[in-house]
Amino acid sequence: MKSAVYEGNKAFSIGESEVVKPGPGEVRLKVAFCGVCGTDLHVYHGSMDARVKPPVTIGHEVSATVTEIGEGVTNVAVGDAVAVRPLRFGDEDPSDNDHAHVGKNLKFIGLDSPGGMQESWTVPAYTLHKLPEGMSLLNGALVEPTAVACHDVRLGQVKAGEHVVVIGSGPIGMLIALVAKDKGAKVLVSEVNNNRVAFAKELGLDAVNPIENDLAEFVTEWSGGTMADVVFEVSGAAKGVEAMTQIPRARGRIVMVAIHPQPRPVDLFKFFWRELQLIGTRLYEPCDYDEAIELLASGRVPSEPLITQVSPLEKIQEVFATIDANPEGMKYVLQCSN
Amino acid sequence: MKSAVYEGNKAFSIGESEVVKPGPGEVRLKVAFCGVCGTDLHVYHGSMDARVKPPVTIGHEVSATVTEIGEGVTNVAVGDAVAVRPLRFGDEDPSDNDHAHVGKNLKFIGLDSPGGMQESWTVPAYTLHKLPEGMSLLNGALVEPTAVACHDVRLGQVKAGEHVVVIGSGPIGMLIALVAKDKGAKVLVSEVNNNRVAFAKELGLDAVNPIENDLAEFVTEWSGGTMADVVFEVSGAAKGVEAMTQIPRARGRIVMVAIHPQPRPVDLFKFFWRELQLIGTRLYEPCDYDEAIELLASGRVPSEPLITQVSPLEKIQEVFATIDANPEGMKYVLQCSN
Repeated sequence: MKSAVYEGNKAFSIGESEVVKPGPGEVRLKVAFCGVCGTDLHVYHGSMDARVKPPVTIGHEVSATVTEIGEGVTNVAVGDAVAVRPLRFGDEDPSDNDHAHVGKNLKFIGLDSPGGMQESWTVPAYTLHKLPEGMSLLNGALVEPTAVACHDVRLGQVKAGEHVVVIGSGPIGMLIALVAKDKGAKVLVSEVNNNRVAFAKELGLDAVNPIENDLAEFVTEWSGGTMADVVFEVSGAAKGVEAMTQIPRARGRIVMVAIHPQPRPVDLFKFFWRELQLIGTRLYEPCDYDEAIELLASGRVPSEPLITQVSPLEKIQEVFATIDANPEGMKYVLQCSN
Repeated sequence: MKSAVYEGNKAFSIGESEVVKPGPGEVRLKVAFCGVCGTDLHVYHGSMDARVKPPVTIGHEVSATVTEIGEGVTNVAVGDAVAVRPLRFGDEDPSDNDHAHVGKNLKFIGLDSPGGMQESWTVPAYTLHKLPEGMSLLNGALVEPTAVACHDVRLGQVKAGEHVVVIGSGPIGMLIALVAKDKGAKVLVSEVNNNRVAFAKELGLDAVNPIENDLAEFVTEWSGGTMADVVFEVSGAAKGVEAMTQIPRARGRIVMVAIHPQPRPVDLFKFFWRELQLIGTRLYEPCDYDEAIELLASGRVPSEPLITQVSPLEKIQEVFATIDANPEGMKYVLQCSN
């Protein structure tokens, strides 16, 4: 039962996965696949050592099979294929206002407690969503990032016929674009990397490089002058924040998906002048998982082109080095068991 | 028929009000009262000379009596008491998305064309809202700024029982606080001027000086830990923008009322982390005028304490100098006819 252990300083070792007997309300899983997230890259770079406390197993984009259930577990049975929603809810704070997924005492499994880059993993049963018959476990590894996109598109209230611009098309940006397109929106990806621009076009999306084109002019023409109904800022860059207020229509919505650790200059005048809205989004709620599973299982969001590479867990060191050197890749997935 | 003319460089002269015969769809008014807005102060300071083009008559917070109606006017009759919604709608732009009051080609009457600081004024009939029997014309001069507050509170979706914090309590901030209180919200005013803090308390509002108190700690205690459901940023100050993200609850709404001419550093991480929303608001729509008239006519928003001073139009030069020297005052009103 193998496990990948992050040792700090860009180093992983392969160790033994501790088989933790599930307590009441818990479930032990045999992890099939675990995708590598941008957050895992931050861990690899040492930026999150204070939080994750190496040596530790990380990873949270997991598909798995249930191998043992604890007392009182009724939502899954041994043998079920599942995806994990890696949120451990803490005590409710009065300021949470019933939004547990952004609650003050929320813990993220895979960062605040051991993650899924190992063969045996024990988690709360309430984190599990069953995968339907016929949906592959590899496909299931995309449920977590797709649920992020479903959440963002839902909170952005994207409707059929709307013009949607996604600024930044890493895996999450690309999934947002695909989910918005599935809603019937007309979607434009704005991306500085030309290989990603080409990739977006291969997926049937409109795409533009804002370094080579004036984005506001491009959006004006592309939308026939109506401008963007919804803008997703997924770039995390100051230029993205600058662009996000230049392209919406009156009362347009801007969805803040990216993490901007430092305050950024924002054109608040434009918010006033055209009554724009900014909508912060983070993680997902159960319904977003349900939708993600449906979109992936049906193929309405195509997983195959989004999976750049599948590698055995033992290759984790190489995989992280490859991702680090290749910012054009989409989703790298680790196979954690056979 | 007198008129106040802004000559540039903080100077007004008193001249003759041109009696403009109302064309089709227009109405000639005998202006009763015209309030002085913060924007008029900007004009006085010369900051808007390029837009207003002195010599020119400004003013847009008007109550009046209808003296003559043009061809095809049916919504008002001679003798009606009215308030003016000073928006002249231009050609619709596709990016306006049916939001004419923030339309690209909107013209603001009193800035982009002559205003109401004169005895005779001719405006489009569609700008007029009738005042009910028994509502004084002086009270009517508060309709425009109260409609701003109604619009802001409506777009902020303030509900009974919610905790609302208003940052900055000039006339608009104070009116927002009063309108929100009328909705049944618990309202706290955050204001750096202690005289205004005292005034807010006299009006039955909670109030705090954020220079003398840690605002986030104060709001925590004041709200019993639930924090603000809605925050109105009306200060226009960098400190206000800093505070606005520190006090909302999860998925709290921040309403951007103030004009920030320069981009401001905004804590976008907090928008992500707690799924905050920013809602830009500007001006008003017809329903906001209807509500403002109802609130003022019924006394649910008390106009008397908000009117600092009423002066004859001839005293305009003194009035602007007084406002400039007295940042604690609320609404100064010019009487434009007897």
